[in-house]
Amino acid sequence: MIFKGKLEKCEIVCVGTELLMGSTLNTNANTIAKVLAQNGLYCFWQTVVGDNIDRLTDQVKESITRSDLIIFTGGLGPTEDDLTMKTVCDFCGVKQVFDKKSFDRMTEMFKASTRPMTDNNLKQAMLPENSIILDNDNGTAPGALFQAQIDEHYCLVALLPGPPSEMGLMLENYLIPALKPFIPHKLKSEYVHIIGVGESKAETMISDMIDGQVNPSIAPYASEGECMFRVTQSMPADTEADDLITPIVNRMKDIFGDHIYEIGTRSLSEVVVDLLKERGLTCAYAESLTGGMISSGIVDVPGSSKVFEGSIICYSNEVKQRLLGVPREVIVTKGAVSEECARQMAKGVRELIGSNIAVSVTGIAGPDGGSIEKPVGTVFIGFSGENGEDVIELHLNGNRTRIRKVTALRAYDLIRMHLLKGSYYNEKP
Amino acid sequence: MIFKGKLEKCEIVCVGTELLMGSTLNTNANTIAKVLAQNGLYCFWQTVVGDNIDRLTDQVKESITRSDLIIFTGGLGPTEDDLTMKTVCDFCGVKQVFDKKSFDRMTEMFKASTRPMTDNNLKQAMLPENSIILDNDNGTAPGALFQAQIDEHYCLVALLPGPPSEMGLMLENYLIPALKPFIPHKLKSEYVHIIGVGESKAETMISDMIDGQVNPSIAPYASEGECMFRVTQSMPADTEADDLITPIVNRMKDIFGDHIYEIGTRSLSEVVVDLLKERGLTCAYAESLTGGMISSGIVDVPGSSKVFEGSIICYSNEVKQRLLGVPREVIVTKGAVSEECARQMAKGVRELIGSNIAVSVTGIAGPDGGSIEKPVGTVFIGFSGENGEDVIELHLNGNRTRIRKVTALRAYDLIRMHLLKGSYYNEKP
Repeated sequence: MIFKGKLEKCEIVCVGTELLMGSTLNTNANTIAKVLAQNGLYCFWQTVVGDNIDRLTDQVKESITRSDLIIFTGGLGPTEDDLTMKTVCDFCGVKQVFDKKSFDRMTEMFKASTRPMTDNNLKQAMLPENSIILDNDNGTAPGALFQAQIDEHYCLVALLPGPPSEMGLMLENYLIPALKPFIPHKLKSEYVHIIGVGESKAETMISDMIDGQVNPSIAPYASEGECMFRVTQSMPADTEADDLITPIVNRMKDIFGDHIYEIGTRSLSEVVVDLLKERGLTCAYAESLTGGMISSGIVDVPGSSKVFEGSIICYSNEVKQRLLGVPREVIVTKGAVSEECARQMAKGVRELIGSNIAVSVTGIAGPDGGSIEKPVGTVFIGFSGENGEDVIELHLNGNRTRIRKVTALRAYDLIRMHLLKGSYYNEKP
Repeated sequence: MIFKGKLEKCEIVCVGTELLMGSTLNTNANTIAKVLAQNGLYCFWQTVVGDNIDRLTDQVKESITRSDLIIFTGGLGPTEDDLTMKTVCDFCGVKQVFDKKSFDRMTEMFKASTRPMTDNNLKQAMLPENSIILDNDNGTAPGALFQAQIDEHYCLVALLPGPPSEMGLMLENYLIPALKPFIPHKLKSEYVHIIGVGESKAETMISDMIDGQVNPSIAPYASEGECMFRVTQSMPADTEADDLITPIVNRMKDIFGDHIYEIGTRSLSEVVVDLLKERGLTCAYAESLTGGMISSGIVDVPGSSKVFEGSIICYSNEVKQRLLGVPREVIVTKGAVSEECARQMAKGVRELIGSNIAVSVTGIAGPDGGSIEKPVGTVFIGFSGENGEDVIELHLNGNRTRIRKVTALRAYDLIRMHLLKGSYYNEKP
């Protein structure tokens, strides 16, 4: 395929009345935006329009005049409502032609499934002439990429299906590789993940690095209880440039120290599972306020059975006492939310499950149960290993869900720090 | 406030470069879209633009010509980047005036917090003349609603902050009430929640009801493992109309029977917690593939301590045997993923925790571990009560995360059915 334009301004157009009604959360726009940014393409607009020929035509007209690449998603299905392919091709004056390869692939897919192939599916094999066909590894509708011309302006038009599982694969595996030759520069990125520093505080701590930084660029991505910085260097597509990323990452290491849990793409639970695997250790959990969230996050990592045998969820004081051996007097004199209780919970679950190490959490997630002495957000996390126990105390803010989530993350972090350093952070950043 | 137009076409414009970069998932557009639909307002476009005066101005121009209500979110903060208020007011020819009430409220907020109030915050008290000020119960920036006029076209313009926790409250508590007088009709809705029927199958089962239905309208909302139909009746704002919803809901009851777990707004875990509370029962869980997800979902419901004391997460066979009393020969001859194992797990956890009833799950979440006899997605869910044990077998599809999520939902459903009917579904829908 030839592209006579310059790939500078991109935009995303999602087609679907269900998005306008709020029935479906638009994750596609976010996925595409991320992938474009990772590949050094700049997205200037995201639009959602309904399954309506007139409004979709207006949108195509608007977008094609202002952008160099338009990525459409949705409306490639077999029904009457699915009108993106036809509307876009009609406006661009591009003929739809029968694509035998796509048709054969669809026929095979229907043979393998129990659903019958209908005449409507034939429509999905009518693809833009002179386009790059984008295979669908997770569904029937193929996508396409072609060049459109309006007056003197050339524009790349990509058509992707709406279901996120189909769209995501087609984007990563076929569309981006097809666009690569037209991207004038290439990018290198590194991802720095930080835990135990307030999300907005972390950004403030390196605001002088973020401000005024053009290449490499530093983009913060905050989520509950942790944050990540993407450091991205842009360079001409055809040369090798000096490494500008490492100095930036090294400065971040100086600033955040042990709070950096990963330079790469692993989540904190993946880091913990990998660390445990490396050391040949198993870990058990005694969960009160998290109620199973910590263990579930570990099980979410494929292959976690090597480092995880089981846990005790001890929501009531009775279970804490009877199964984990927390003395009744600890509960009565110190309370279930106390350093002493967390210590015995960790010790108790380690013994009961027979794991090498163990972590316990107890705290007040709210909305009720707080007091002046121990307000909502008071959390104790205990660690038990061959050298004994260690307990940290946290004061978290936010609602019940957030307090529980952040507690789970900090429990992982306590394991990480103990495995790496033999203790928790010596000082706060 | 006066509005001389007719409130028919609405649109949403989200302002923020972080949305275009994919750093932040755009949940605001979805929240607003849902609330508009619930209130009988039709949304025709959603747009995202960056923090850029020229492109934002172009968007205001475009939107104001085609819509009767534009809801802007984002860009109301105190920094240089926050330019929505000024850009929109400038384009509409509306003066920004100092609002003492908002300024005083901000001053109070800063006094209560540890952050200092800066001169920049003063900017946030400069609000559109003759507008309805929308209070911010969760942050500093107030919002506003005013009427704009372009040629002969009148348009309502609403400005809301970007942070979802601030935006959501302002939308529900202040913007919608302020819009109410201009909405020509009122709506009544009922929400029918269904479990145990494939998402797309459920929709197909009532496709004749959905197609051609105008009032009440029926909108499907699918999520992993369950689905919901919103049945909405529209009527003139000033009259009481006949109830058209109940006949529709009754037809759904005929079709889906016991698979309807809620007519209202509760989640399945909330329904289960409420049922257990009503009966004065506690339930314990023995979780293998879900790894704590089921218990965590129960703990997520405030007040769940009345019906939940604790659980055993038994990921390894050893824990299944030692703590839950699964006989070694069951593991050896039938496997850990078997009816017999699920039965003993449920019985064992009920005895160990001392709960009134118990549920167990064991299965293959993948990606590894499947065989021809027991492919990935094979799941057994056990129930134990005073009348003995019951086990159901499921064959789920999807990836590891989906299989685990759907298993958790179906475990809740098994409890619900046993409490309501004394057994699981007698027949499939």
